[in-house]
Amino acid sequence: MFLKNCWYVAALDHELIDGKMLGRTLLGENVLLYRGESGQVTALNDRCPHRGALLSEGRLEGDSVRCMYHGIKYDGSGKCVQIPGQDMIPPKLRVRSYPVVEKGHLIWIWMGNAAQADPALIIDLPYLEDPNWKGIPAYLHYDANYLLIVDNLSDFSHLAFVHTATLGGSEEYAFVTKPIVVEKLERGFRVERWHMNSDPPPFHKKVIRDKRSKVDRRNIASMFIPGIFNMETLFAPAGWDVQSGNYAGVRQYRNCQFMTPETERTTHFFWVYLNNFEGEDSTISLSLLNSLIEGFMEDKAIIERQQKTLEADPNFQMLGILADAPLAHFRRVLGKLIDAEQVPAAATGTHA
Amino acid sequence: MFLKNCWYVAALDHELIDGKMLGRTLLGENVLLYRGESGQVTALNDRCPHRGALLSEGRLEGDSVRCMYHGIKYDGSGKCVQIPGQDMIPPKLRVRSYPVVEKGHLIWIWMGNAAQADPALIIDLPYLEDPNWKGIPAYLHYDANYLLIVDNLSDFSHLAFVHTATLGGSEEYAFVTKPIVVEKLERGFRVERWHMNSDPPPFHKKVIRDKRSKVDRRNIASMFIPGIFNMETLFAPAGWDVQSGNYAGVRQYRNCQFMTPETERTTHFFWVYLNNFEGEDSTISLSLLNSLIEGFMEDKAIIERQQKTLEADPNFQMLGILADAPLAHFRRVLGKLIDAEQVPAAATGTHA
Amino acid sequence: MFLKNCWYVAALDHELIDGKMLGRTLLGENVLLYRGESGQVTALNDRCPHRGALLSEGRLEGDSVRCMYHGIKYDGSGKCVQIPGQDMIPPKLRVRSYPVVEKGHLIWIWMGNAAQADPALIIDLPYLEDPNWKGIPAYLHYDANYLLIVDNLSDFSHLAFVHTATLGGSEEYAFVTKPIVVEKLERGFRVERWHMNSDPPPFHKKVIRDKRSKVDRRNIASMFIPGIFNMETLFAPAGWDVQSGNYAGVRQYRNCQFMTPETERTTHFFWVYLNNFEGEDSTISLSLLNSLIEGFMEDKAIIERQQKTLEADPNFQMLGILADAPLAHFRRVLGKLIDAEQVPAAATGTHA
Repeated sequence: MFLKNCWYVAALDHELIDGKMLGRTLLGENVLLYRGESGQVTALNDRCPHRGALLSEGRLEGDSVRCMYHGIKYDGSGKCVQIPGQDMIPPKLRVRSYPVVEKGHLIWIWMGNAAQADPALIIDLPYLEDPNWKGIPAYLHYDANYLLIVDNLSDFSHLAFVHTATLGGSEEYAFVTKPIVVEKLERGFRVERWHMNSDPPPFHKKVIRDKRSKVDRRNIASMFIPGIFNMETLFAPAGWDVQSGNYAGVRQYRNCQFMTPETERTTHFFWVYLNNFEGEDSTISLSLLNSLIEGFMEDKAIIERQQKTLEADPNFQMLGILADAPLAHFRRVLGKLIDAEQVPAAATGTHA
Repeated sequence: MFLKNCWYVAALDHELIDGKMLGRTLLGENVLLYRGESGQVTALNDRCPHRGALLSEGRLEGDSVRCMYHGIKYDGSGKCVQIPGQDMIPPKLRVRSYPVVEKGHLIWIWMGNAAQADPALIIDLPYLEDPNWKGIPAYLHYDANYLLIVDNLSDFSHLAFVHTATLGGSEEYAFVTKPIVVEKLERGFRVERWHMNSDPPPFHKKVIRDKRSKVDRRNIASMFIPGIFNMETLFAPAGWDVQSGNYAGVRQYRNCQFMTPETERTTHFFWVYLNNFEGEDSTISLSLLNSLIEGFMEDKAIIERQQKTLEADPNFQMLGILADAPLAHFRRVLGKLIDAEQVPAAATGTHA
Repeated sequence: MFLKNCWYVAALDHELIDGKMLGRTLLGENVLLYRGESGQVTALNDRCPHRGALLSEGRLEGDSVRCMYHGIKYDGSGKCVQIPGQDMIPPKLRVRSYPVVEKGHLIWIWMGNAAQADPALIIDLPYLEDPNWKGIPAYLHYDANYLLIVDNLSDFSHLAFVHTATLGGSEEYAFVTKPIVVEKLERGFRVERWHMNSDPPPFHKKVIRDKRSKVDRRNIASMFIPGIFNMETLFAPAGWDVQSGNYAGVRQYRNCQFMTPETERTTHFFWVYLNNFEGEDSTISLSLLNSLIEGFMEDKAIIERQQKTLEADPNFQMLGILADAPLAHFRRVLGKLIDAEQVPAAATGTHA
């Protein structure tokens, strides 16, 4: 069961170029996304109500779409506007449309009650549109429930063991560092963790000149409902004083990840890893893109195997350790929101 | 659920050459088909009642078959006639046999109560055995319920959008033509549709010399229980008078298609597309075979996707348009016949 | 449902060389097998109780294993001995371990109640450790329930039809030979069958010089709970008198096969085919290995197809013939043992 009344990332904006008819399953529903002639992005249920053909296999006509089985045409609101060979259009013959908003080079969709779809509720991540922050947006598909990815991002001790040679750097990270702040938020959490006087981890070493000096590393990670991760990372010369205001030699990253359920057992994973120091040297973004993909592949192997293990034994009860406090809080908050969403439906007998 | 007491096409006659042991699933049952030494075609349940081995992996011996696991032998009626190493044959050890009839170069099978299997009930399509009508019989496998193919053939407006560049010719067909006759039959329907003064469609253009002159096109399509489609197509010079009796320059086709359920979600699709004008020029049949395969592949992509869509959401209720009258009638008739077949079974408590 | 309180073969000893972390599903449970630094073989449930990651993807450290997701470490008894970044170890955080014993170059495992795991219950097959008997241990994976393999080995008339050109030799075997002894044992059966004055079968012919003389063939096959097959095969010059004590020119084999359920529908099949006459000529073992694989592939095709047939129709009732007496006895004995195992569980309400 998914939280419906919230904004999810449906696509990266560049996925909708050149009249692309993008069919994508979101929260178990087949959705067609396209940018019409007017420039407006439309999201429609991807199924012709006549005989069930895919509208994403249809033809874009202006801001409308024509089903290419029997030629029935729908406008961007989902209203049927033409049936070849028939004058009268039955009012029932319409397709569900979903509210969509473009923000931060992302296409956001609201899969729940359209009346509640307030664009002001979309998270504000200013770096996504700031030309000083550079990075290459990318996409991965996971054969795993999105919450397993959320879990993964909730405890950074996994950096030490899963990503030793890529994003982590050493196993020491798990033994000598701990979160110094674990803040429970109304719709998520915020964790701050320092690693002092350490070697720069491999991904960072690749994009800096001085590969020998020790660094102080700070990660401030936030997670928000329904599955939006944002981490501010900073590498400073070892011994740096955060109060000093002196950011010379400090390197910063912004890590933005968006988990959108495809189905109960698969996930769309959108992400961009930004830096503010590459200037005109775009090879830095490219190197970081490759490093992150390398690291994500390490996660993917574990998380997709977890999915299989959980499916094979639905009775398996995971046992928590202290580091699981953030993920436990997040799952509790999400569970309550989902339950609350079911109440009115149950009350009116339309419980889905 | 399938209609059992009716004739289905089980195979094309040339599929049973050279002692071929053809294992084929029909209406969810595994059936072995073979032509024995005597020339007689036999259909047996394809499972040795001893340990369940496939008889189609066995050995043809005269008109009998020997299971090649432990060597048990059955005659063409399904009776066990030998158990190696054992003299007494238990009467229970027998295989179900099915009535089969050869007609029109097709092997017809009756999957229901054998006592009702009257060969006179097999549809009469004289062109199938008339040497003046030429064509190449062929087979396609569909990952879709057979009724979705029946539906497809019930509304020819899809020619305009699905087959524009192959069997259709132009989108105009859907806008300017309509069935002029829609006749509901006791066990099917009959639809007549004309397209006047149009360009010959691509498949036809390939096999005629005069590719420029306009033609009048007439399709008379019939569908019969359980899923037998027959269409008489005629292309005449534009302005031709059907009453004239002058068939010079008129080109005719006979389109015979036989949908036999393999399972609830897959179908055997047998077909032959005949013409009566090729004379000794067999390249015409070959061209038509290729054109039809091209067109069927266009249907197959849509229909197999429909199947997935319907399986993903069994609650989806299709919405009819006016052109759906024939298919709605066909499904109603078929539904009643299936219901009627269940009554005696239910009454005797052997409801399957 | 499986018999739990008995010894199964989990692996061949050479599968655990070089610190191999072998993840293998046994009786539906994921098990990690490894030989630690001390030489001791350990079997643990292959799932970290923290977040469900595979321990077989972890790291061997001495006789312990570290999960490589968050670094939690377990010793060979399954006890958690380290959580990076946390001092207190919750006693609940432990992994199930299984009793294991090495015998006959095989790793035996006890999947039931560890308190009952008496090594003396492991079957004694002395040839497995006798240097006079030579053979190459091997493994096959079956997509079929293990009892279908047991069935196969219970009636050797299948040699005649399935293995005519490999292990059998002629169809005559099924018609002219019968078991002369069928002994029902408390936990299995024993069958003795002679084939007099026959051509040597192909697999044997390949490893002997005199390929023309007739032989007398004796098979004494035994099957034991849970699925352990052992056959003593002897080829003597035709007319040989077993009482004579003269074994010149007699060739003997020992056929050891171990069926261990992977799941209800798949099986681990371990086997070794031994001879006592090759001396220093190891090409004989190689030839026999290849002949047996050839024969097993013939069985595999039939047995895996049986599995599909049975899954497709769970109501199918096989019909027995006289030759099925041993397999019927074995299934009866096994069924009773499984039932008996369920009683205490049911009585205490922990029926699984």
